[in-house]
Amino acid sequence: MNADTRGAAIARVQRYMLGHIPLARAMDLSIARYSGTELEMSAPLAPNRNDKGCAFGGSMASLLTLAGWALLELGLRAEGLGCDTYIGDSQIRYREPVWGELRGSARFAAGSSLHALVAALRARSKGHVDLVCAIAGTNAAAATLRGRFFAKLRA
Amino acid sequence: MNADTRGAAIARVQRYMLGHIPLARAMDLSIARYSGTELEMSAPLAPNRNDKGCAFGGSMASLLTLAGWALLELGLRAEGLGCDTYIGDSQIRYREPVWGELRGSARFAAGSSLHALVAALRARSKGHVDLVCAIAGTNAAAATLRGRFFAKLRA
Repeated sequence: MNADTRGAAIARVQRYMLGHIPLARAMDLSIARYSGTELEMSAPLAPNRNDKGCAFGGSMASLLTLAGWALLELGLRAEGLGCDTYIGDSQIRYREPVWGELRGSARFAAGSSLHALVAALRARSKGHVDLVCAIAGTNAAAATLRGRFFAKLRA
Repeated sequence: MNADTRGAAIARVQRYMLGHIPLARAMDLSIARYSGTELEMSAPLAPNRNDKGCAFGGSMASLLTLAGWALLELGLRAEGLGCDTYIGDSQIRYREPVWGELRGSARFAAGSSLHALVAALRARSKGHVDLVCAIAGTNAAAATLRGRFFAKLRA
């Protein structure tokens, strides 16, 4: 995929997300970068703060979940596959408070790949992958999510 | 606590939550019931839907997190303790889609109690508890969160 095509694909998925998931719009989420194997998503603090003035845990969970969803959505669309993609389970660790912009990333866990998911979808119309998502902190990650995401080909 | 006092306390925490956590307002969350040991929180589907038309995973994670937070906030306020209360880690399982109102509950996990948390706060100004939160499904829970919540006495 060349840079123009990728840029247009990112813009389409972001528009789809903001148009179909009201919380994504309330959070003011945007896809900051997508490499094909990793995706970055960001959100300003103001709509995502808690009563302590730092980032709300639910906003961090939502951003990490949508970063994973968008990573798959972009990869599957590039393969011409229209899928319902959703999270099945997640383990989230909150390590330190975030006092500014939320900057999250999603990538495939060891042993998972877009390639294997696409093969499963073509063979059985469904599949799953494990993703590792993180919100940037001062030195290490401020929050991490390890989750299993499922995809089903739309009828 | 008599029913009037409890009703006023619930209203105060709900007002505090909606006033200080923008996402709680965007989700249109409300505290449906509080017994002293269990809390129920609900939200309409419309602002919490995803692109499939059912409840967004991030909305469920946020509701379950805030149900746990509100259970502790109400219990600690009743003990006269002003604390910063936040989630440290969570394990979430999404078991089935939710196609209507989101109805969540939070309670103390086995081995955790408000009593023990209050004792820890009085002794060391901080403490933690494990909570079990769930969103109602057709037969069993549609989603569950098991999380560790931390509280620190405000200076």
